[in-house]
Amino acid sequence: MPACNTISFNRGVPAPETLPSEKVAESCRSILREDGKTILQYYSAQGYAPLREHLSEQVGPATTKDQILVGNGSLQLLNILANVVLEPGDTVLVESPTYDRAITVFSRLGAQIRGIPLQNDGIALDAFKELVQEEQPKLFYIIPDFQNPTGITTSEEKRRKIVQIAEDHNFQVVENTLYRRLRYSGEDTPTFWELNPNVVFRLSSFSKILSPGLRVGWLVARPSLMDTLSQYAEDTYITSNMLSQGIIYKILEQGWLETHVNSLKDLYHSRLKATLQALEEFLPQADWVKPKGGFFVGIWMPNVDVRKIYDESHDAGLALSESSSFFPDRKPRGFLRIPFCALEEKKIEQGIKRLANLYHELKG
Amino acid sequence: MPACNTISFNRGVPAPETLPSEKVAESCRSILREDGKTILQYYSAQGYAPLREHLSEQVGPATTKDQILVGNGSLQLLNILANVVLEPGDTVLVESPTYDRAITVFSRLGAQIRGIPLQNDGIALDAFKELVQEEQPKLFYIIPDFQNPTGITTSEEKRRKIVQIAEDHNFQVVENTLYRRLRYSGEDTPTFWELNPNVVFRLSSFSKILSPGLRVGWLVARPSLMDTLSQYAEDTYITSNMLSQGIIYKILEQGWLETHVNSLKDLYHSRLKATLQALEEFLPQADWVKPKGGFFVGIWMPNVDVRKIYDESHDAGLALSESSSFFPDRKPRGFLRIPFCALEEKKIEQGIKRLANLYHELKG
Repeated sequence: MPACNTISFNRGVPAPETLPSEKVAESCRSILREDGKTILQYYSAQGYAPLREHLSEQVGPATTKDQILVGNGSLQLLNILANVVLEPGDTVLVESPTYDRAITVFSRLGAQIRGIPLQNDGIALDAFKELVQEEQPKLFYIIPDFQNPTGITTSEEKRRKIVQIAEDHNFQVVENTLYRRLRYSGEDTPTFWELNPNVVFRLSSFSKILSPGLRVGWLVARPSLMDTLSQYAEDTYITSNMLSQGIIYKILEQGWLETHVNSLKDLYHSRLKATLQALEEFLPQADWVKPKGGFFVGIWMPNVDVRKIYDESHDAGLALSESSSFFPDRKPRGFLRIPFCALEEKKIEQGIKRLANLYHELKG
Repeated sequence: MPACNTISFNRGVPAPETLPSEKVAESCRSILREDGKTILQYYSAQGYAPLREHLSEQVGPATTKDQILVGNGSLQLLNILANVVLEPGDTVLVESPTYDRAITVFSRLGAQIRGIPLQNDGIALDAFKELVQEEQPKLFYIIPDFQNPTGITTSEEKRRKIVQIAEDHNFQVVENTLYRRLRYSGEDTPTFWELNPNVVFRLSSFSKILSPGLRVGWLVARPSLMDTLSQYAEDTYITSNMLSQGIIYKILEQGWLETHVNSLKDLYHSRLKATLQALEEFLPQADWVKPKGGFFVGIWMPNVDVRKIYDESHDAGLALSESSSFFPDRKPRGFLRIPFCALEEKKIEQGIKRLANLYHELKG
């Protein structure tokens, strides 16, 4: 099968047709006319104050703009947070599987990373409690809504228990809420930050709901740590990108992001349904949790070495992620991540068919 | 004296009236029309290829776009480079005084930082050779053109000797050339990169010649290290700001930056002359090297504790930088940095007068 016809199931990227060139150009002109001398100059590393004001209102009534740090995407902010909070040898708990780049951030700082198996409604609490007792972790990193890579959402009950355990055992929860606004069905669950801001850092980003290339993410933290975090950011890059921050501020101010997110939800919901339908039709042997939002369906395939599927995928016209990268111990456990947002429904169906064929060829 | 009338001699920022809002807005629209789907999406951490192509041509005929890493300002790139190259305990040599934020980058990685005193034409070579022998450094960080904070330019002769010593003793020169294009008189001296790219990393930035708020800097490195540097960048922030890179690419493509830099030179040269004239008139007791470009005049004042001048500066209507921050051992040595670009000539004269009054009040 020719490579030019490859179907990409390997990156969590927004659908290219949704990237709002015209709106960004227009907002760029507006913010430069209004506040160009600020936008094009050096500025506090904490980020553009009008944007932080807007974000703090969105986060909740008890949160102020002084608790927001805006940076070049949420990964950079996770790096800053981890550098400020962690010492080499500290233990970090993560969901297993989890976002591969988060594992890299923690491991290059010399942290011990331990994974908690995921169930349909979030981590296995017994295993979590046991590891907390054993390891006295410094951080627990979690993507509570439509998780990367599984699509799983942590239930409210589990969220409440997790923050209680964090408070009792004196560690911090880092929640990355970057898919939260992309809910296609059901009702929002409270954020960890809403449940107990004293033991929580909240990360988020505009990469999934507006544009990755603008590189704007944000971190919410309790006031006592903000000076240290901002100083670390300043020592790293002085100022984060002001033009992107100004553009996003204009887009938020006009209320246009709501409209845009609603259109993304319509588009992505259809693609999610197509993915689930194709899985039911062509891969009924696999297991998956039906996500209610986000970018990914995670599937577990019985009786097969997914590394073989990965090795053969290119020739089968598929681009896949290496599943082992999502697990802290780098063992893939029959897991595959299917990102569905950037593919038309026909491509999704065709891709799942190809995957099903590979599975049937390679299963034991 | 009221604080609202304070004259700021404390930050190396471009003159606000030169920040090109209209050109940036226009270039933003052009690049989004031409290549919006690329600019607003994820991209290689190495940076926007058309911009890298353009930069490599500017750096020199033997340099390719694969040797350029574009990032969120040159400080961020120095952070990446230092993280990749240094181990805790390694020695880094710097000019003394030097850019305070560079000291911070090296020291937070646990490096030993040793300063080489500056003479009118660059570092004292005897002291340099001695420290190289003693310390076997990993890096020598230098701002060869119109140095921050002294305004000193390293002579060609010293540059040639430094690269030879680096080659003989197996360490790397990191040259930050961010003021290089702001030469107001005299002829260019070759870059370290031009003299010997095998022992050199070259950093630069658009912050001083276009806009700091766009946050675009670049690093030139030999091909063998580029994969490691790009991977470190990717693990830190996935992609650097694409919109700013696209805007700068359009500005370079149109040849507009040349025109802009020429107008900056006219403006800043007058301000430099005003600074030197005011120093001669009001502070003839001090010593300084007449810079031929850049942002700063560095002055040494005899028989005075500059910390006292700093402490009194606010009440005297001046904002100054703490001089100790420019020295690796944090001892100020009668030194003060005068940034002149962002002040009108009358303000410069008034500021130097205030400084001279303080000096006469406080000198021993």
